[in-house]
Amino acid sequence: MTGYITYPAKLLDSFCMEAFGRFGFNESESRIITDVLMMSDLYGIESHGMQRLVRYHKGIEKGMIKVGAKSETVFETPVSGVIDAHDGMGQLVGHAAMEKAIEKAKTAGVGIVTVRNSNHFGIAGYYAKMACDEGLVGFACTNSEAIMVPTFGKKAMIGSNPIAVCAPAEPYPFFFDAATCVVTRGKLEMYNKMGKPLPEGWAIDKDGKDSSDAADVLSNIVGKNGGGIVPLGGSSERLGSHKGYGWGMVCEMFSSIFSLGTTSDKCMQNGKGGICHGFMAVDPRIFGDAGAIKAHFSEYLTSLRESPKADGAERIYTHGEKEHFAYLDRMKNGIAVNENTVREMVDMANYLGMDVKKYFGDFKASDSKMFSGNY
Amino acid sequence: MTGYITYPAKLLDSFCMEAFGRFGFNESESRIITDVLMMSDLYGIESHGMQRLVRYHKGIEKGMIKVGAKSETVFETPVSGVIDAHDGMGQLVGHAAMEKAIEKAKTAGVGIVTVRNSNHFGIAGYYAKMACDEGLVGFACTNSEAIMVPTFGKKAMIGSNPIAVCAPAEPYPFFFDAATCVVTRGKLEMYNKMGKPLPEGWAIDKDGKDSSDAADVLSNIVGKNGGGIVPLGGSSERLGSHKGYGWGMVCEMFSSIFSLGTTSDKCMQNGKGGICHGFMAVDPRIFGDAGAIKAHFSEYLTSLRESPKADGAERIYTHGEKEHFAYLDRMKNGIAVNENTVREMVDMANYLGMDVKKYFGDFKASDSKMFSGNY
Repeated sequence: MTGYITYPAKLLDSFCMEAFGRFGFNESESRIITDVLMMSDLYGIESHGMQRLVRYHKGIEKGMIKVGAKSETVFETPVSGVIDAHDGMGQLVGHAAMEKAIEKAKTAGVGIVTVRNSNHFGIAGYYAKMACDEGLVGFACTNSEAIMVPTFGKKAMIGSNPIAVCAPAEPYPFFFDAATCVVTRGKLEMYNKMGKPLPEGWAIDKDGKDSSDAADVLSNIVGKNGGGIVPLGGSSERLGSHKGYGWGMVCEMFSSIFSLGTTSDKCMQNGKGGICHGFMAVDPRIFGDAGAIKAHFSEYLTSLRESPKADGAERIYTHGEKEHFAYLDRMKNGIAVNENTVREMVDMANYLGMDVKKYFGDFKASDSKMFSGNY
Repeated sequence: MTGYITYPAKLLDSFCMEAFGRFGFNESESRIITDVLMMSDLYGIESHGMQRLVRYHKGIEKGMIKVGAKSETVFETPVSGVIDAHDGMGQLVGHAAMEKAIEKAKTAGVGIVTVRNSNHFGIAGYYAKMACDEGLVGFACTNSEAIMVPTFGKKAMIGSNPIAVCAPAEPYPFFFDAATCVVTRGKLEMYNKMGKPLPEGWAIDKDGKDSSDAADVLSNIVGKNGGGIVPLGGSSERLGSHKGYGWGMVCEMFSSIFSLGTTSDKCMQNGKGGICHGFMAVDPRIFGDAGAIKAHFSEYLTSLRESPKADGAERIYTHGEKEHFAYLDRMKNGIAVNENTVREMVDMANYLGMDVKKYFGDFKASDSKMFSGNY
């Protein structure tokens, strides 16, 4: 098991801003990319924060992510749009697409925007929350390299395919952001970095058997050898495998199908990401009094939190509550970063000719046996 | 374990048409209600077909379902509507609401309609498919009497909250209809009727412990004693309980929250159903060439079905495929009905003064120990 080092949020923010600037993004572009990554770590979603920098580093280095790409709206109606990202950074087209969906929702009541030919965009929840911050209900989803094995299959054919939903509520928004497979690939990457065995019921090996070996599963996914992560609901219909698989398909529909883009099974091949996203914003005023709707939702969320707890349970959470408290804690006490992630950040800083000491002092990583191939 | 009796689809259809006519519905109303129930049995979803007649029988008898109710549109925009069902039959307002969503989608590209003060509407998939039959993508959801226990809770606070999605594809549509808890209440009702123990990981008793006793769990739900069905993903976060719970909340948002209606925790109380629904239709032409989108989706679905199978698995299904083949089989070979369900149908026929022999010959039910209280 590897250790963790805690850094102030501000330092990690500065590090990302400098790094993306050196990759060639302008200040406002670097701000968006950094915000998406920081929100993930601040919300306690370690898998999609600094942990993911190596992926962007390698993606840009190899040319899969094109720094200067300009996204292009290829189809548009008053309630919809389709954007071709031309292999740009996922966060940038994601931000622009959600802004378009929000603009349409503000005039037409609903806006749905899909994106093709993009790259990984970080946490889906970031974009859903953009709509919520404007008093709307936001939805965001993305496909990814195939990682989810369909029910009764043994080859990954569907992405982790997260869907996020965010809606105004007091005292904090409803914020639900979840992969439609049982866990994200990022979680496997974390277990790989920590050197910990995977819990039972998460992943299968290339022969379709249960696996607790994160490094092996990740290497099979990248090598397209078979195996992957099971859908939410497990590997059999008894506990609803077909349901997680179905939600994965709904995500695929709103991303790659409605954009006429690349389906998960064909993403991240031949040097091309091909990732597709989907965004929707809905103005609650199309259903009446937005204030009354928000109050009604808040009241229900409160009643859930206050309902009887299972024996041994400390509290019942509503979605977004953990993230809210994680944010307050990390802004005050800093963000703990796995030392294997720090090692990757140091590599990236060296690659970019940054002053490593300024950020990480005399950091020396211990030896690591994690899988680190082929981002 | 109880036995099954097979009847021709036409006979069950005639039975429903006569029964709902005698309850006071006119011919076109009876046609809609019957179609929803028949589609469920023909699609192999036994839990929501004839099995559910007793619920409508008791609901009408007690006055919870008002036969003559006229639903009323209380709010409307070019992309949305909110309908008050005034305690009418769920199928009727559901059908009308989806027709409105379809009409709006055909002109504005998207239509979202919510419904409050309704009753159970059968399978959500019926309404989603209405949109698909018109070349649109359909969504339908409903809350219900609280049956799902939130993660870390021990009291049912959320309905079974199914969400259905149906989209055009060849050779059969994508048809995904699933409760957001691990199984539906209807499944528990089936196990209750069959006298079979529940599989592990489905339900908890009033103290929050795993339970295999369908009769006990159902009686606790109706009696509001605690316990219920766990979310898709189980009872702990390890396998994603919070995700099923989150999807349940999304359903609640699109039904009771956006209609300013009754949340699941307050449904079916004091002689009032209060059930709320949500419907959405999206015209794929808002994303470009609908034919190309359908072809793209069909190709992906085919590649999923043809992907490598797990050891021992006969085929990989895509959503709607099982239903398609069940329909062909049942239209030809008839529908098998549990004899406890037949007993309920005979009771209903007697209550309505129907000619029981015409439908069921000399049916004599064996003794039953199932829970049958308080529908």
